[in-house]
Amino acid sequence: MPVTDRVKQILANYSSDNPGTLTQIARLLNTGKLAGTGKLVILPVDQGFEHGGARSFAPNPDAYDPDYHFQLAVDAGCNAYAAPLGFLEAGAARFAGQIPLILKLNNSDSLAKMDQPISAITGSVDDALRLGCVAIGYTIYPGSGARNQMYEDLRELTAEAKSKGLAVVVWSYPRGAGISKDGELAIDVVAYGAQIAAQLGAHIIKVKPPKDFIEQSEAKKVFEKYNIPTKTLSDRIRHVVQSSFAGKRIVIFSGGEAKGNDEILAEVKGIAEGGGFGSIMGRNAFQRPRAQAIKLLHDVMEVYRKA
Amino acid sequence: MPVTDRVKQILANYSSDNPGTLTQIARLLNTGKLAGTGKLVILPVDQGFEHGGARSFAPNPDAYDPDYHFQLAVDAGCNAYAAPLGFLEAGAARFAGQIPLILKLNNSDSLAKMDQPISAITGSVDDALRLGCVAIGYTIYPGSGARNQMYEDLRELTAEAKSKGLAVVVWSYPRGAGISKDGELAIDVVAYGAQIAAQLGAHIIKVKPPKDFIEQSEAKKVFEKYNIPTKTLSDRIRHVVQSSFAGKRIVIFSGGEAKGNDEILAEVKGIAEGGGFGSIMGRNAFQRPRAQAIKLLHDVMEVYRKA
Amino acid sequence: MPVTDRVKQILANYSSDNPGTLTQIARLLNTGKLAGTGKLVILPVDQGFEHGGARSFAPNPDAYDPDYHFQLAVDAGCNAYAAPLGFLEAGAARFAGQIPLILKLNNSDSLAKMDQPISAITGSVDDALRLGCVAIGYTIYPGSGARNQMYEDLRELTAEAKSKGLAVVVWSYPRGAGISKDGELAIDVVAYGAQIAAQLGAHIIKVKPPKDFIEQSEAKKVFEKYNIPTKTLSDRIRHVVQSSFAGKRIVIFSGGEAKGNDEILAEVKGIAEGGGFGSIMGRNAFQRPRAQAIKLLHDVMEVYRKA
Amino acid sequence: MPVTDRVKQILANYSSDNPGTLTQIARLLNTGKLAGTGKLVILPVDQGFEHGGARSFAPNPDAYDPDYHFQLAVDAGCNAYAAPLGFLEAGAARFAGQIPLILKLNNSDSLAKMDQPISAITGSVDDALRLGCVAIGYTIYPGSGARNQMYEDLRELTAEAKSKGLAVVVWSYPRGAGISKDGELAIDVVAYGAQIAAQLGAHIIKVKPPKDFIEQSEAKKVFEKYNIPTKTLSDRIRHVVQSSFAGKRIVIFSGGEAKGNDEILAEVKGIAEGGGFGSIMGRNAFQRPRAQAIKLLHDVMEVYRKA
Amino acid sequence: MPVTDRVKQILANYSSDNPGTLTQIARLLNTGKLAGTGKLVILPVDQGFEHGGARSFAPNPDAYDPDYHFQLAVDAGCNAYAAPLGFLEAGAARFAGQIPLILKLNNSDSLAKMDQPISAITGSVDDALRLGCVAIGYTIYPGSGARNQMYEDLRELTAEAKSKGLAVVVWSYPRGAGISKDGELAIDVVAYGAQIAAQLGAHIIKVKPPKDFIEQSEAKKVFEKYNIPTKTLSDRIRHVVQSSFAGKRIVIFSGGEAKGNDEILAEVKGIAEGGGFGSIMGRNAFQRPRAQAIKLLHDVMEVYRKA
Repeated sequence: MPVTDRVKQILANYSSDNPGTLTQIARLLNTGKLAGTGKLVILPVDQGFEHGGARSFAPNPDAYDPDYHFQLAVDAGCNAYAAPLGFLEAGAARFAGQIPLILKLNNSDSLAKMDQPISAITGSVDDALRLGCVAIGYTIYPGSGARNQMYEDLRELTAEAKSKGLAVVVWSYPRGAGISKDGELAIDVVAYGAQIAAQLGAHIIKVKPPKDFIEQSEAKKVFEKYNIPTKTLSDRIRHVVQSSFAGKRIVIFSGGEAKGNDEILAEVKGIAEGGGFGSIMGRNAFQRPRAQAIKLLHDVMEVYRKA
Repeated sequence: MPVTDRVKQILANYSSDNPGTLTQIARLLNTGKLAGTGKLVILPVDQGFEHGGARSFAPNPDAYDPDYHFQLAVDAGCNAYAAPLGFLEAGAARFAGQIPLILKLNNSDSLAKMDQPISAITGSVDDALRLGCVAIGYTIYPGSGARNQMYEDLRELTAEAKSKGLAVVVWSYPRGAGISKDGELAIDVVAYGAQIAAQLGAHIIKVKPPKDFIEQSEAKKVFEKYNIPTKTLSDRIRHVVQSSFAGKRIVIFSGGEAKGNDEILAEVKGIAEGGGFGSIMGRNAFQRPRAQAIKLLHDVMEVYRKA
Repeated sequence: MPVTDRVKQILANYSSDNPGTLTQIARLLNTGKLAGTGKLVILPVDQGFEHGGARSFAPNPDAYDPDYHFQLAVDAGCNAYAAPLGFLEAGAARFAGQIPLILKLNNSDSLAKMDQPISAITGSVDDALRLGCVAIGYTIYPGSGARNQMYEDLRELTAEAKSKGLAVVVWSYPRGAGISKDGELAIDVVAYGAQIAAQLGAHIIKVKPPKDFIEQSEAKKVFEKYNIPTKTLSDRIRHVVQSSFAGKRIVIFSGGEAKGNDEILAEVKGIAEGGGFGSIMGRNAFQRPRAQAIKLLHDVMEVYRKA
Repeated sequence: MPVTDRVKQILANYSSDNPGTLTQIARLLNTGKLAGTGKLVILPVDQGFEHGGARSFAPNPDAYDPDYHFQLAVDAGCNAYAAPLGFLEAGAARFAGQIPLILKLNNSDSLAKMDQPISAITGSVDDALRLGCVAIGYTIYPGSGARNQMYEDLRELTAEAKSKGLAVVVWSYPRGAGISKDGELAIDVVAYGAQIAAQLGAHIIKVKPPKDFIEQSEAKKVFEKYNIPTKTLSDRIRHVVQSSFAGKRIVIFSGGEAKGNDEILAEVKGIAEGGGFGSIMGRNAFQRPRAQAIKLLHDVMEVYRKA
Repeated sequence: MPVTDRVKQILANYSSDNPGTLTQIARLLNTGKLAGTGKLVILPVDQGFEHGGARSFAPNPDAYDPDYHFQLAVDAGCNAYAAPLGFLEAGAARFAGQIPLILKLNNSDSLAKMDQPISAITGSVDDALRLGCVAIGYTIYPGSGARNQMYEDLRELTAEAKSKGLAVVVWSYPRGAGISKDGELAIDVVAYGAQIAAQLGAHIIKVKPPKDFIEQSEAKKVFEKYNIPTKTLSDRIRHVVQSSFAGKRIVIFSGGEAKGNDEILAEVKGIAEGGGFGSIMGRNAFQRPRAQAIKLLHDVMEVYRKA
């Protein structure tokens, strides 16, 4: 498993981490069709928890089966597969050694109405070890009144994961009383969410592709004064990457709701041109028929490989 | 590393602390261009967390890179560099031994609307040890309805830090339902904030330079009855130093929002004349181009050296 | 240090305590000008935390310096000096062995508006041990809606302090939604506060001298039916002492706001005649010039000695 | 990283293990030139500890440098590199992700004369995690009077390693008062040693290639009665594999002292024909000049690949 | 405190360590007259424990006073001062920040006759933290029958020290039943002792300068076969450095018994020429009159500076 110069360069950005954690990051970067390029495409499947079975899997009923997703990630040549405890437990033994796993440690369902958005902690660092994962995953909602609880829980999980040689992936999704609904995708807010995740010690940050819109008036002044370009998606991605410690933290982008291939590939092209490290693509993968999904994922990987 | 008489005098004020903690305070006072003078200039960079990337770093985009700040603190001859977990982890191995580090253990972002101002705990004393820090940093908001939570969290962190031979720096920023917006900078309130931090066991206290204004009517009576002078900045600094255990606790002053060199140097002169121990200067340093920032920090240090 | 019969008699009231705790109570009773008499005068200085520096120390600016209070307590021949963490840490090493110390474990400032009065816990039993204290101090506000939190926190601290051979001093100051402002000093309320502190396991109880006024109607009926005298201060003190387990718990009285010498000595005479164990006198001591403060404290001690 | 049928078959033998441990075994089997074949060649370098620097590295002085061995294992396409704490710490960060690591948790030097042979525990399971290892390694000396101490220490380490998702490699080297010097290589003794390691819960067992000689008279009777063939090396390997749970535990063979290429390859052929899973080859690798070592290791791998 | 290229090069050899430990190693290398050169001269004073007061301090009675040694190390410009708990506690507060400290965690006296040489553990990692030390020190006696106890105790102390951001210095002094008295200084034995310390995870290794003599017959064969030169001291030092991971671990040499200046400087020259990192010089420093000791230490440092 020789490591490319690009991967070594990325690992050097995590020089305060122990060799165990570095090894896991290297495994992520050394797997799949994008191995060695420093780019990543990850398959996440937490939609069952977040939206229920039918809303998630009815478009492609094979996807009700947890094994389906392991096999899809392997066959498509993804860098990793991320899911909650139940989905990982259902296949981790059978697929041992076939694909790096990320255990999503907190999850939210859409049955409860929470005063302030906050997910439940549904797994542990020790679960990640016994399931053979390379990383833990955790979602924060900056903007929520329950922010402190989330940041503090993450702090403890992060410290434990790092001491046990695991990597930490943070989904940073600003939402809550402090932010308008549209503002959740505003460029200032998304970039701020990435900065917060980085400051909290994340190795890999996942955000949504931002829109050309500024939520906070204080931020607006700065974007205007310093002419920070936000018109094209690549402009905005470039700003998010910059806001992730000048590209010294891996930042990847979610695919969002299901949409057409062309739209997806155009978006991915924008991400790649802006210097994004890759995509984490769930519904747009597993809700398509298997052959189409693999074709699409390969096309996405090709965009990143050529970037 | 011989220690000057002035530094010995200051260390004598902390005679209940163990030699480990005394060693860290000595390291702080023995580093940089002000080494041995008993004065300090510290570079703090928590603005990325507090205000987001663009508002913090767009004026000087090199500052998006965490390494930038380590190097700036080293090259400017600061006594220490203070930042949240993510920023310190990004460079602590590479810059090991080059600059004393302070791990900011709690942080707040400006996306959420909190009922009562209170920061999230985002690091631990053990993080400070593994990153090689000389001190932990913690922000309290006296005046907040969440005061007890903050004081009690600080109490535990302080006890642990002291037992493990670290120093404790407390940012004391009165705010919240108990205080008017203007009152946050009132001389009675700022001096009271310093007193509270000292009583909570802080070794080093950071407050904002106070304004000539008294918030609390009970305090007003006393200031008038005893003719406590508050007209000039030095008058007010002198009162804050007195309120910090008659100068037996190190108290330093933040630079606040970015402003012009002359204004800054005039303010620093006032702080120095009033007996302040130094400045903690973030945005006024890293938002300037590097050469200008170093020049300004050197000028500031000169003011303190001559005081 | 032979122990007088009176001190032995008092210690016998605490016979369920371990010898460590008994030793600390004996040290308190065997120190200073009142050593061996079973009476106490304690110097408490938590006003800096409670009211800020200027309101506390401007009348006698030497008192900004933490060393001042240690020396005052020693020179005046007090039984002990009580203060929050910061003030004790500032001098405990320098004054080691010169005066029994009481670490005030909770404190409140007057910047925040709390829904229900409750102090923050700002120190620990282990802090008291490492600083060489004879006792911990803790303030309860019976009448506050946050009562349970305070009683339960105290319970844990008391259990820990007793198991580690320390004594427990409880400041019992009824206040909060359950009591009128005047009622805080009503004889029924003050005596009830003392009873609660005793029931919570305090070794030493501190209350304010009560006024001739009954707050609770149910109490009024009883005071009238049984002709409980409340007209003179000694009458009321006698009732408070009775309510403190028939005098089997040490109960001492605060001096309250600064006032004239004659007024103070008259009040102390009333306390002494009513069987009070002594005074805890802060502002009336440290806000006077040092010589006057020592003179006054000596006069107060003389009243108790003659009682 | 698709997994071959042979690897799946092997993993099925460990179906009581958690997915984490299965993942590590799969990683071992999926690395290097023998990836997917179910065969392994591992580079072990504990000779520095066991025999000192000169005896280990003077034949090829580049091997004094810890980085040398990481690079050799990578370039030769080994399945893993095994070494004590110091050697792994020296390069684990630099070579993160390039080669599976096995932390040898106990080691012996040849300076002390021990009453009963027993190695010292020189690393921990947590060390293995922070260094990013796939397995711990541990040496037992069946036949030693200190047997129970070793088996019991191993039991604790094994339980901890398995719960944390690591694999366990046991070096089983019968020696001590219970066995003659020659007997250490007797076929009955070596096969018995493999059985003990398997019964102790080892995932991978390392023994020495046995000689055609029977140590224990009780064993001799049985070998004769049941005509167990021991004449050729493959005969004896076949018996050792059988004794390792009928081949359901991976058993590999050490190369022993440095010798000529032909001799080595003949021996490896015998091991492969007898069904051995592979070789663990230290001195015969790193004591040769690098190019020769890589050539030899490739030749050895070819033998296994063709088996 | 900028760090020289040579120091950065050395720190890179410890890349698996956390930034805290790297910071302590940098502090050691950045202190005193040899700061930045990558060379070290350390003052160790454990002779009082090892040989008693008179044998240690009668030649220079000022040295009975613990403060004497702190001041000597500071004034001579040493990199560090190493001593047992009592000596460090006696001065650590007074000399806080003046000289890096190493707490010797195990010590032996010469009153008891031990069956197998082994020191007692007389301090803890937490002691090192509260005293402000940069490193722990520990002595092993390879060759002793109590070897396992020592290696295992060291293992636990090392793991704890590294996790808390301290460095580890190992005194490796082969002795015991496995080695002849003369053999303790044999080149094969000393080099083997250095290798063992390195494999146990030491950051800094202290051995005695070896003599031109080979103890173990197996080693003799190798030294002869590979023509390892051992005639001059530099030859032997070069071999010890090589045996310390090809110079990737810092290895320093003790001065041994008191002797004349010329003899010492000749020996130091040999150490420097052989690539040794420095000297740890106790009796030859503190048993001389202060001025002579400082002169000698400066001369020693000059030899290293010029190397």
